[in-house]
Amino acid sequence: MKKITLGVGVIGSGFMGKIHAWAFGSVGRIFALQQKPVLSMMADISAAAAARAANQLSFERSTGDWRELVHSPDVDIVSIATPNIYHAPMALEAIKAGKYVYCEKPMATTLRDALEMTRLAEEEGVITIVGFNYLRNPMIRLARDIIESGEIGEPTGYRGVHSEGFMADKNQPYTWRCEKKNAGGATSEIGSHVLATARYLLGDIDEVCGQMDTIYHTRPAADGSQREVNIDDQMNCLVKFKKYGFTGTLTASWLATGRAMHHGFELSGSKGSMVFDQSRFNELQLYKADQRGGRKGFTRIELGPEHGDYGAFCLASGHQLGFNDLKILEVKKLLDCIATGRQTDLSFRDALQVTRVSEAIARSSEEGCWVEMTEIEDLPSLQRRKPKISSGNIKAVLEKPV
Amino acid sequence: MKKITLGVGVIGSGFMGKIHAWAFGSVGRIFALQQKPVLSMMADISAAAAARAANQLSFERSTGDWRELVHSPDVDIVSIATPNIYHAPMALEAIKAGKYVYCEKPMATTLRDALEMTRLAEEEGVITIVGFNYLRNPMIRLARDIIESGEIGEPTGYRGVHSEGFMADKNQPYTWRCEKKNAGGATSEIGSHVLATARYLLGDIDEVCGQMDTIYHTRPAADGSQREVNIDDQMNCLVKFKKYGFTGTLTASWLATGRAMHHGFELSGSKGSMVFDQSRFNELQLYKADQRGGRKGFTRIELGPEHGDYGAFCLASGHQLGFNDLKILEVKKLLDCIATGRQTDLSFRDALQVTRVSEAIARSSEEGCWVEMTEIEDLPSLQRRKPKISSGNIKAVLEKPV
Amino acid sequence: MKKITLGVGVIGSGFMGKIHAWAFGSVGRIFALQQKPVLSMMADISAAAAARAANQLSFERSTGDWRELVHSPDVDIVSIATPNIYHAPMALEAIKAGKYVYCEKPMATTLRDALEMTRLAEEEGVITIVGFNYLRNPMIRLARDIIESGEIGEPTGYRGVHSEGFMADKNQPYTWRCEKKNAGGATSEIGSHVLATARYLLGDIDEVCGQMDTIYHTRPAADGSQREVNIDDQMNCLVKFKKYGFTGTLTASWLATGRAMHHGFELSGSKGSMVFDQSRFNELQLYKADQRGGRKGFTRIELGPEHGDYGAFCLASGHQLGFNDLKILEVKKLLDCIATGRQTDLSFRDALQVTRVSEAIARSSEEGCWVEMTEIEDLPSLQRRKPKISSGNIKAVLEKPV
Amino acid sequence: MKKITLGVGVIGSGFMGKIHAWAFGSVGRIFALQQKPVLSMMADISAAAAARAANQLSFERSTGDWRELVHSPDVDIVSIATPNIYHAPMALEAIKAGKYVYCEKPMATTLRDALEMTRLAEEEGVITIVGFNYLRNPMIRLARDIIESGEIGEPTGYRGVHSEGFMADKNQPYTWRCEKKNAGGATSEIGSHVLATARYLLGDIDEVCGQMDTIYHTRPAADGSQREVNIDDQMNCLVKFKKYGFTGTLTASWLATGRAMHHGFELSGSKGSMVFDQSRFNELQLYKADQRGGRKGFTRIELGPEHGDYGAFCLASGHQLGFNDLKILEVKKLLDCIATGRQTDLSFRDALQVTRVSEAIARSSEEGCWVEMTEIEDLPSLQRRKPKISSGNIKAVLEKPV
Repeated sequence: MKKITLGVGVIGSGFMGKIHAWAFGSVGRIFALQQKPVLSMMADISAAAAARAANQLSFERSTGDWRELVHSPDVDIVSIATPNIYHAPMALEAIKAGKYVYCEKPMATTLRDALEMTRLAEEEGVITIVGFNYLRNPMIRLARDIIESGEIGEPTGYRGVHSEGFMADKNQPYTWRCEKKNAGGATSEIGSHVLATARYLLGDIDEVCGQMDTIYHTRPAADGSQREVNIDDQMNCLVKFKKYGFTGTLTASWLATGRAMHHGFELSGSKGSMVFDQSRFNELQLYKADQRGGRKGFTRIELGPEHGDYGAFCLASGHQLGFNDLKILEVKKLLDCIATGRQTDLSFRDALQVTRVSEAIARSSEEGCWVEMTEIEDLPSLQRRKPKISSGNIKAVLEKPV
Repeated sequence: MKKITLGVGVIGSGFMGKIHAWAFGSVGRIFALQQKPVLSMMADISAAAAARAANQLSFERSTGDWRELVHSPDVDIVSIATPNIYHAPMALEAIKAGKYVYCEKPMATTLRDALEMTRLAEEEGVITIVGFNYLRNPMIRLARDIIESGEIGEPTGYRGVHSEGFMADKNQPYTWRCEKKNAGGATSEIGSHVLATARYLLGDIDEVCGQMDTIYHTRPAADGSQREVNIDDQMNCLVKFKKYGFTGTLTASWLATGRAMHHGFELSGSKGSMVFDQSRFNELQLYKADQRGGRKGFTRIELGPEHGDYGAFCLASGHQLGFNDLKILEVKKLLDCIATGRQTDLSFRDALQVTRVSEAIARSSEEGCWVEMTEIEDLPSLQRRKPKISSGNIKAVLEKPV
Repeated sequence: MKKITLGVGVIGSGFMGKIHAWAFGSVGRIFALQQKPVLSMMADISAAAAARAANQLSFERSTGDWRELVHSPDVDIVSIATPNIYHAPMALEAIKAGKYVYCEKPMATTLRDALEMTRLAEEEGVITIVGFNYLRNPMIRLARDIIESGEIGEPTGYRGVHSEGFMADKNQPYTWRCEKKNAGGATSEIGSHVLATARYLLGDIDEVCGQMDTIYHTRPAADGSQREVNIDDQMNCLVKFKKYGFTGTLTASWLATGRAMHHGFELSGSKGSMVFDQSRFNELQLYKADQRGGRKGFTRIELGPEHGDYGAFCLASGHQLGFNDLKILEVKKLLDCIATGRQTDLSFRDALQVTRVSEAIARSSEEGCWVEMTEIEDLPSLQRRKPKISSGNIKAVLEKPV
Repeated sequence: MKKITLGVGVIGSGFMGKIHAWAFGSVGRIFALQQKPVLSMMADISAAAAARAANQLSFERSTGDWRELVHSPDVDIVSIATPNIYHAPMALEAIKAGKYVYCEKPMATTLRDALEMTRLAEEEGVITIVGFNYLRNPMIRLARDIIESGEIGEPTGYRGVHSEGFMADKNQPYTWRCEKKNAGGATSEIGSHVLATARYLLGDIDEVCGQMDTIYHTRPAADGSQREVNIDDQMNCLVKFKKYGFTGTLTASWLATGRAMHHGFELSGSKGSMVFDQSRFNELQLYKADQRGGRKGFTRIELGPEHGDYGAFCLASGHQLGFNDLKILEVKKLLDCIATGRQTDLSFRDALQVTRVSEAIARSSEEGCWVEMTEIEDLPSLQRRKPKISSGNIKAVLEKPV
């Protein structure tokens, strides 16, 4: 009998690259997998940095040239954990090389890139996944199941938010996050999470009316001067949900002093409601209108073995998952899809839709009016979720003995 | 030495009228007042209902004709606790009669009425107050003091909400609250609270973009038929604050299943933040960016003797005020203003501004665009907050021996 | 037809006396009563203080001699809101005068006094009530109903606490609360609440093992000297519940820095649990083991119209009762019992049991051992809850026309 | 240059063994270590089970004989994750073999064993650590730092609890946890956590008075019969802290229906207080008496990069650690101590003290009286925290090239 492995190449040895490596290295001890990921190669901008990281993170090899990684025969999965502007060229090259692609969010810095990445990935039939890690929380899946099963009736209201405070101080230095060409700004950086969660729960958005505010128009540069900022510090918008017809609000801000990871929602339905906050992501508040009189109220559900894959991590509820465990679950999802030849539930196609809404909000903000999603360029979806390459790929893997 | 009294006439013997009577009857035992309110007269639509209420609530007299109450010489304060459509005619009559006017919210069913009420009240120099009771909470005053003192820096973000669930069931019967001519609908009914709180904290609004949703287009009538509904079930809007320039969101909904009194806000400033929820209104969450490293976090402040008039009710924090105590504080405010001849901080002029924003939201929703507040009719504010009648009124009162 | 009134005499014009007056003055506007309380007489240690209070609180008369109040024919209810040492002599005199007695907690400063007060009250058949106001909260009644109905199965665990921080600073001055002869100390002052709540929910206690700590052995006196303290700052004990057989813990402390009104419990049963905290007393957390899989959790029930008399105060849940409203409910209970000739559910007999447990804890602490309740003097309970005087009393009242 | 490794042998392939393996396998990617753990050998009761686990968890070898593992030259650390009764013989054998010992809690099933294990470990100078994982939370370390620095003044009150509900149903089957000889029962199983946390924060206990309740005297056996239970379902006790002199309460229960991981404390000091609950272990509530007037309250601190090693896991607060991350931190502690030749802060000596208090509580419960800790056998502490073997051990390791 043969032991099956999948070679993993991680591009970028910063914090997120380290977490990717850790997740691929950990997942096989949490879950019994058919195909074990092997940390084959680490790439970074310099060979030395890559070598250092490879040594600490126990990669087999390292390189200062990400293209070498992409084209290495022992790399099956290309994991992209670099600054936003590099996502598109790296992903395109990896797709062309027939690799599975795991890309951090936001998938690209422009809608044009996102369209191209999606088109090529679907043409090549590549399995892709984008790092919207919060959606790997079994609680979020529970929330979606509750909506889709009709357990809380017809959805009628939604308020979504992702706020953090890391740029709240006007003396917070100028970084690449302050540049539009890097997909900087609150909307792209953290707003993509609020859009992804809304879409995951309630489906596509039809129409948006948004307002992006730049509160601090300059930030101190490294040389002590004040440098002009050309991105938004916060975004608020009204959105209409296609499937349900009602209007909700979405907010993204990195000026929310004191907020660390206030990613959440309040969702009302005709027969119940839910409240969630990522800063206590092992909990979900659920209200059911059919509770007994005098006993009604929001129930604080704690994540436990009854919910998804939690039981693989902890024996009982109350123990709690951490953020990094969500990354293990993300990697698990990718591996499951590779094993079965299915597209993931957060493929480039899905992330493209997030990018399109983001684009619509920006246009709406600029023009001061509602924008319909039909006005934003999309891609015909013929290839969607049918990766032609996957079986072959798995075959290749199966032939590689251990 | 003379004991000073103020005669109180309450119009409407429903729940709110009862609370008005109770508040006027209670305030003198909580606070040492110079002028004690005396429950002079109760009016209701029928003489019998008025008499019954007067008997239970210990009014001196009662009447089936509210005009009789308004014109009774022993009535100094006219308290209007009737359905919305009656607010305007009763208030106008009371102003003409030179009475202090305490009117429940919303002040009127149309902007035209609100303008007229404000104009007349200011011409006549009448002290007026509108029942935005949540603003009487010393915690809300604390929040405003914190903003205005610069304690949390420059405000940069605001999310306000008032949601309840009492109409969430589509089988909830058709009532007068479902008619636009009665100022029915979520925006008027409960949205006025969310607008009033935002304005109380952050001042006037410049521009709005709103969306009003009618989710249930019919409701069951008393005869069993389905009756068409012509008001909104929920409202979401983007607002720009004049003084601070940033954009916030406001939401009002009566479809928020499970929510009982979710009136609150999250406000971010450059140096701190606050979170408040009326469903725990004895608490305020405050974050200060200048807290010591490793000890930062939101502090849950409990209402206590250090905050406003709380100490008149309870000896120590943790005991807690109830909703009705807020009504006592509202009455106390009116009595204080009468005693000193100043206009109240929630006069008809203030409520008019709330009405104008409500009008702007409605127009924005209808036209699908942003609306500037300058497009909405306003009243020149020459008379504002300078009641000419008050000293005379107090004189009259002083001459009335007990 | 005659209007029925009950004359109320309040002894003590401090904060609690004021609240008693306010509650008697308010109750008739919240509830439709057959017998309206009338504020007949205020007594205080000086005639001047009494007169001042009577004027502000609208009593008909006042006196510097509490015995005059007790023996006034127009006083039916004697309300005792004086320092603890005066409770016994005043209550005994009032009982002898055939008056209904409303006494603040603790009922007495010694077990001997409590026994005598109970004996005389039962011999005379007087309706009595002691001011354990927290038990008037409809949420506490709901908790008891849930226990007694078996809704959470057989109780198996209990942790009760009443902690406040008002003496946490060692420089907090010496007061009468620091003297044992005044029933000072954490156990008597606030521990009586924790004992009363435990008994209200779970019935009598069988056996106790307690430890009383005096942390600060001196406190600064008015003259600047350090004065020796002879009472406890905090008490912890193990208690066995007679009916259910299990052991729980009770804690009372006035050194709990930062705690304002942390009066609460966590109660486990074989099929559910409850958690309550007075500092959010409009809420009860309830867990039911029979909830659907994946949806289990503590439900935060908000006080609402479905719970007891809440609906007389507020139209919908979320509005919330305040502390003083509990005093109105306490007065309402007394008036209901007077109207129907029944003894109250927190009569002297009940408060005696609280006093006895308090005594047992003190003895246990002193002797360093478990103490059985049978070792503590009790009173044969023949007369219990059968007031012989009540019908006559009501008759007398009925004959007093208005 | 040589790469340094430490061979890890894990005994027991159940859930906890898997987590041990995962933690050793993960720690090197979270932290840059000088000595990398290598998963050398897995042992279980059967060779087949061991082989299966070794395969999934990526151990180099496996065995059905734990003694083989203990004596393997490539095993430096022996990790014991077996049922309680095996802890002592395995640990003793490992100590004799000169291995570092990582033992799950409770360290032993009898005080005698714990004494022997501690004696031998100290004689042999072995570095040991016991799996009180909750104490690895940087928040708990913060709490201890706050106490020890005097930041909240002198501690005066403590209520500790560890409650879960997994045995609350009387039909929960009989297991080895129901047998005293296996150190079954709530006190041993989960009470050891509550004792360990109290000691970690406040130091040694002087005297205890405890009560252990067996609520369910039988449990259903596998054959359908009711089998007698000879352990406690819950424990409550009063404890006096040696260093501070005050009395606190400790509770352990596995009957707390609805509680999943309610391990926590409320600690009062003369100048501040703290509240912690493991079920939200990324948070600590801190109250400081010196806060500004009108702004006082408990501050909810979120675990972040300012706290201990959190920053190695996550970039910003709000992301959150999970339970398993605490195990990584436990392993990290052991590796740090090995690297520097210091004894751990939760060595056998420390765990022995927990066992002794547990023994004292049992005796107190049996005899119905207070028990002083001096009555419980202890071990002279000459060798404490000075591992003689460590330097040699490290030397041996250093000589093993990779």
